[in-house]
Amino acid sequence: MINVLVIGDGRMGTIVRELVEADPDMELAGVIGSGNREDLLEAAPAVAVAIDFSHKSMFDLVEAYVKRTHAALVSGTTGYDDDEMARLRSLGDLAPVIHAANYSLGVAVLKRLAAEAAQALEGWDIEIVETHHNQKVDAPSGTANLLLKAVDPDGACEVAHGREGFTGVRPAKQIGMHALRGGTVAGVHDVHFFGQDEEVTLSHRTTSRRIFATGAHAAAKKLVSKKPGFYTFDQLMFE
Amino acid sequence: MINVLVIGDGRMGTIVRELVEADPDMELAGVIGSGNREDLLEAAPAVAVAIDFSHKSMFDLVEAYVKRTHAALVSGTTGYDDDEMARLRSLGDLAPVIHAANYSLGVAVLKRLAAEAAQALEGWDIEIVETHHNQKVDAPSGTANLLLKAVDPDGACEVAHGREGFTGVRPAKQIGMHALRGGTVAGVHDVHFFGQDEEVTLSHRTTSRRIFATGAHAAAKKLVSKKPGFYTFDQLMFE
Amino acid sequence: MINVLVIGDGRMGTIVRELVEADPDMELAGVIGSGNREDLLEAAPAVAVAIDFSHKSMFDLVEAYVKRTHAALVSGTTGYDDDEMARLRSLGDLAPVIHAANYSLGVAVLKRLAAEAAQALEGWDIEIVETHHNQKVDAPSGTANLLLKAVDPDGACEVAHGREGFTGVRPAKQIGMHALRGGTVAGVHDVHFFGQDEEVTLSHRTTSRRIFATGAHAAAKKLVSKKPGFYTFDQLMFE
Amino acid sequence: MINVLVIGDGRMGTIVRELVEADPDMELAGVIGSGNREDLLEAAPAVAVAIDFSHKSMFDLVEAYVKRTHAALVSGTTGYDDDEMARLRSLGDLAPVIHAANYSLGVAVLKRLAAEAAQALEGWDIEIVETHHNQKVDAPSGTANLLLKAVDPDGACEVAHGREGFTGVRPAKQIGMHALRGGTVAGVHDVHFFGQDEEVTLSHRTTSRRIFATGAHAAAKKLVSKKPGFYTFDQLMFE
Repeated sequence: MINVLVIGDGRMGTIVRELVEADPDMELAGVIGSGNREDLLEAAPAVAVAIDFSHKSMFDLVEAYVKRTHAALVSGTTGYDDDEMARLRSLGDLAPVIHAANYSLGVAVLKRLAAEAAQALEGWDIEIVETHHNQKVDAPSGTANLLLKAVDPDGACEVAHGREGFTGVRPAKQIGMHALRGGTVAGVHDVHFFGQDEEVTLSHRTTSRRIFATGAHAAAKKLVSKKPGFYTFDQLMFE
Repeated sequence: MINVLVIGDGRMGTIVRELVEADPDMELAGVIGSGNREDLLEAAPAVAVAIDFSHKSMFDLVEAYVKRTHAALVSGTTGYDDDEMARLRSLGDLAPVIHAANYSLGVAVLKRLAAEAAQALEGWDIEIVETHHNQKVDAPSGTANLLLKAVDPDGACEVAHGREGFTGVRPAKQIGMHALRGGTVAGVHDVHFFGQDEEVTLSHRTTSRRIFATGAHAAAKKLVSKKPGFYTFDQLMFE
Repeated sequence: MINVLVIGDGRMGTIVRELVEADPDMELAGVIGSGNREDLLEAAPAVAVAIDFSHKSMFDLVEAYVKRTHAALVSGTTGYDDDEMARLRSLGDLAPVIHAANYSLGVAVLKRLAAEAAQALEGWDIEIVETHHNQKVDAPSGTANLLLKAVDPDGACEVAHGREGFTGVRPAKQIGMHALRGGTVAGVHDVHFFGQDEEVTLSHRTTSRRIFATGAHAAAKKLVSKKPGFYTFDQLMFE
Repeated sequence: MINVLVIGDGRMGTIVRELVEADPDMELAGVIGSGNREDLLEAAPAVAVAIDFSHKSMFDLVEAYVKRTHAALVSGTTGYDDDEMARLRSLGDLAPVIHAANYSLGVAVLKRLAAEAAQALEGWDIEIVETHHNQKVDAPSGTANLLLKAVDPDGACEVAHGREGFTGVRPAKQIGMHALRGGTVAGVHDVHFFGQDEEVTLSHRTTSRRIFATGAHAAAKKLVSKKPGFYTFDQLMFE
């Protein structure tokens, strides 16, 4: 039976709590929200794993909790600066720690496959298309940027964010990035490889933000059997 | 039996000639190329229909031919200026005439359906994506611009040619246009309509430029039974 | 201000109630569930429009309510037999009435466009593909059958539900129907038209069953200004 | 400079010859057609590599040629029986030999990625969809069967070739295979993986049968530097 502390009582924290409660292998030891955040310093019990979807402003408290209890930590909180990321990594000396901006298993697979395809299909033209709901305020998506890095790890290619007017022929060392916005789309990512008379397309579609909670929950179950260290989601799920 | 004169002996003219020769309802009365272009003035025989995929520089000769013979004219020659277009329209007083930049039946259907969908799905977000080979030197494609006009005939929407950085939430009165370039793709056009929890997508894919010749050949067969006048491809095929 | 009675307190009825409550143009006059169904006979107030997502077993009560109050009726209850459907139509003598198995605006548009495309693209090969979650127990989907009827209203084509082994060349008068099942997909329908060197595809994707409630709510707002009669969702939304 | 003998003067052999002639690193040493097939026994010169897209009836002659000259062999001829395949493999003792039914680089990549995805996405539902022109007489395509083997190497899953009527919920150990037929489509293959609230799709599209010649030509350039042995296309291109 895996004891779990859920940190965060917002949308994602709530879904994580439901998953923990529904999992016969897990037991919910407590939930930390904005009202009882100070409990992380002393009152919150030691557990096998803490799953954190709270807010970057709570980092000091989360760090103190792991230092005190050596609980494994699945962190899905975003927006940390470089210093905070370094301190998060250091927690890997005390406990198994994982941090990811995106706990979707499908996105992780897409990233790996896209990297492999880019190597095998050397010289093919690559274009990345992402689609999100009309309330998203920036482009391209974080996941699209991860995919870009997967297919062009050395940053050897120029990136074309849309094309208009007289562009000339497409340079070989270019990657097109296209951001579609509309409706309530939860997230679609397509990586296109265009060759001579053939094309390969790798796609991922999310229909609910629930998948991030589902992936964090799956990661927690794997993380508890690991040695202390700082892991990526890829390493944890595929190696 | 329909007598046909093919004007133009380039890539498209050659395909048209093959289609005419293979059609049991048609008889090839002659082919005009750069070598015998002056034949249009006197030697070229009167026919039921002339199919012209030549060059804008031959417009005077083509015009003279229709004035002399009153042959129906299917024109696929592009690049005419406003004056030439006006003179082409005037030929409609003498004979049935059609001019189109794109004789694809599928594209014509896509245009009509996209216009209807835009009306029926009022308030949905529209995004247009087109994909062409890596040698294409401009963006968006002419067909994508036709589609834009079909879904927003009054030009009421701002057009976003790609998105990057902090964009803010998507304005309702915006249409995204995205130009993918890669490999040897002959031409793909997608019109997306995004609503609340649902989406409609209308797509066309060309796998060969032959379709433009096929469409002109089909148009010729319809045009011969029409009264003199200047027709659009849409009018001819759907009304 | 439109007075609304919501009949049904299951999943769809609950969403409809929320939409009514959130709509500044509407006022919720009451909700009929299994506990107070008899209220339809006398206690339930007369309203501008009743939206019914209850159960076929409640038909007698719903019918009695419309006879008593002449309220407009948006019916989304399924499973009625021929006799019940006939009685439902008769209510159109007293009040504006609409019944649909699928209140998705996008599906209604897809159906119309598919019918038009099938006429314009005479002789092209048609294939219909639908995808639903892995708990669906029958195939093809009701919507796929509606699309089949839209593209082949006279039933002139044979239907191929999958292909295996030596099939011979595809007969022209055939329509392929393909049912994909997997994961939690709420519903995708694609109608493909394949011609010589080109293809047209019309697609609809649902990401939530909420769209049926959304469509019924939109239909209610249109229905209240109509004369008594029995309407289809298409007629109401597009004519 | 690589000396090449092209065996076969049909559609594919002709394209291969053109590719060899256009390649500055290659020199065409001869072409064997049906008229001069006996030349393989004595007259045909020894070369670095022979590319064979002839007919299974010529196997004895091709075998004799390799035995005599120890030329590397790229074989794209199909329809060999088990005995002939065994003899072809044995030629690997004398020279580097490769045989493939499909020399598309994109298909080879798709196969590898699909195999990996199936392992990483354990428990997700898999559906394979292939689309080909309306003249194809069997289903599913050979490539679709290769993909099936890639995602289910042990044959642990039942295969559903289409679904109709009351099917019950989808069994976990099932793979759906769907064959679309229409128009002039050269070949499309999609492998779908459906999970909880997300999906991954891997696709390949061919727009011309030329790609098989292109791939065989690329394989020939790699094969000439290999030690004698029997290679698969995958091994040659990716390892």
